[in-house]
Amino acid sequence: MSVVEQILKGDVRATARLLRDIDDQMPTTHEILRELYPHTGKAHVVGFTGSPGVGKSSLVDQLALRCRKDGLTIGILAVDPTSPFSGGAILGDRIRMQRHFLDDGVFIRSLATRGHFGGLTRSTNDMINVLDAMGKDLVLVETVGVGQDEVEIANSAHTTVLVTIPGMGDDVQAIKAGIMEIGCIFVVNKADREGSRKTVRELMNLVELGVRRRDTDGWQPPIIETEAIKGRGIDELYEAIRKHRDYLAANDRGQMDDVLEKRARSQLIEALKDEALRTLLRRLESRGISLDSLISQIKSRQRDPYTLVQEVLANELRDFAC
Amino acid sequence: MSVVEQILKGDVRATARLLRDIDDQMPTTHEILRELYPHTGKAHVVGFTGSPGVGKSSLVDQLALRCRKDGLTIGILAVDPTSPFSGGAILGDRIRMQRHFLDDGVFIRSLATRGHFGGLTRSTNDMINVLDAMGKDLVLVETVGVGQDEVEIANSAHTTVLVTIPGMGDDVQAIKAGIMEIGCIFVVNKADREGSRKTVRELMNLVELGVRRRDTDGWQPPIIETEAIKGRGIDELYEAIRKHRDYLAANDRGQMDDVLEKRARSQLIEALKDEALRTLLRRLESRGISLDSLISQIKSRQRDPYTLVQEVLANELRDFAC
Repeated sequence: MSVVEQILKGDVRATARLLRDIDDQMPTTHEILRELYPHTGKAHVVGFTGSPGVGKSSLVDQLALRCRKDGLTIGILAVDPTSPFSGGAILGDRIRMQRHFLDDGVFIRSLATRGHFGGLTRSTNDMINVLDAMGKDLVLVETVGVGQDEVEIANSAHTTVLVTIPGMGDDVQAIKAGIMEIGCIFVVNKADREGSRKTVRELMNLVELGVRRRDTDGWQPPIIETEAIKGRGIDELYEAIRKHRDYLAANDRGQMDDVLEKRARSQLIEALKDEALRTLLRRLESRGISLDSLISQIKSRQRDPYTLVQEVLANELRDFAC
Repeated sequence: MSVVEQILKGDVRATARLLRDIDDQMPTTHEILRELYPHTGKAHVVGFTGSPGVGKSSLVDQLALRCRKDGLTIGILAVDPTSPFSGGAILGDRIRMQRHFLDDGVFIRSLATRGHFGGLTRSTNDMINVLDAMGKDLVLVETVGVGQDEVEIANSAHTTVLVTIPGMGDDVQAIKAGIMEIGCIFVVNKADREGSRKTVRELMNLVELGVRRRDTDGWQPPIIETEAIKGRGIDELYEAIRKHRDYLAANDRGQMDDVLEKRARSQLIEALKDEALRTLLRRLESRGISLDSLISQIKSRQRDPYTLVQEVLANELRDFAC
């Protein structure tokens, strides 16, 4: 059986091997990804983002358990070096996650290396496609922080869950300033802590502001209080995700279309950026121009990076007339 | 006087205009940046990174005041939508920052937009070069989070300061997991809070571990407790930055060389990636191939992104033989 057939049949070892090769950014993966692509598009992709320490992993962990009760199969991708899924966090967390290891319905993988020249969003897109083709009903993607990468990874999800905790005023500011638009569902985790109601109220105000500003497209992001560790609020979160999926599927105003376009755009742009850089660097090398010599010229200010980049592109790109 | 001459003389309005154009990713900036580049290399660049809410802006604010006492001129770049420098935070913060507005020796600018196709690190590199050419002694760069972008922006700094607060166990995990190597100085801000000593001890253990693992290159990252709001610990931070600068300048083991190479590499790679993408998209458009039509083919799964990207590169790149 070919690797592609194995993965389409849900083979765990073949899938694990491919994901590792994607993480290592091996070009050999492209052919397999190409053949898998027509088989993608069935999974619902949920992204979880928020600052370190807000408990994203515990939420994902509990949500996976909840989904399993309904018989849904789950893929989990941790794009976060601090995630217990990646082995990054304290021992207790890691052991908790291991309960899924005996469950065939849950496939957990983390992006171990952040590529030498970036390409994180691209790798994540590729891995989502693999888990999708493998037949998982839901793919849960855990990212960290509020940076550009996280916004980009949100482009790969159907539903994005923004997680914060009580008293993180600056998180609310971050949501206000930049990432409000990407949130489909807001979670205030560790809701037993002081100030939870206040955080919920602040988020409600932001949601109302956002809804008004964007001339409501029919989805009012719910704000859910959870205590992931105790399992509180997980049913509500599960229902909210289902509702958002149904909302997208209803499709009367083209919302699903927007999401799919956003995902397709991310896949094309990220792959183009990544592959263009790799190809250019490979070509420089083949022409006997070492990257190090260029860097050394910039370092000594013999040359400037602006002119050098124009030269590389002029040399490598086809003449525009032909 | 040309724009370049104006900026080299420290003209605030010309500089502000150029930075705005860089933020808007206008290609017209390249010519100016090219001419400014030979005049760069004098400023010491200090990057501040850490989760939202740890008080990076207050630290930068207080540090700028301290530097002014010694007559140093300062450029501040806020690469953080939540920064009060960007107008993102609560009113009190913003007003505090405004005390610098009347001081010619401090130039504050924030990156307002995060480019449509990324390019954040590149814009930051370019802006640092402008403030450097403008004659600022120190350039302080405030970023948010622990993501890939922040690690990349750390590549643009001589000295990277990692900021955390007591009780952020997951921040310490993040430092452990991925960003330990980029920290030259660690700050535990809001050190009046419970658990500050514990956080300091955890960081000390990590530093010792890191130093041992890397077979010490002669710099032991100091861990400094601060209360930025009250100005506590700012002198120590200032001294630590000076010491790190002197350490780099002593250059007996090539440390400064490593930093300059890292910076040059970042400038070349980020500009190449960014410009390659832009050029390819422009060319597609000129050939009458709309990005939207490609995206739509991927969306409908008529085509896969992997093959499409190879086709675009094959069409646009010069034949390898010639």
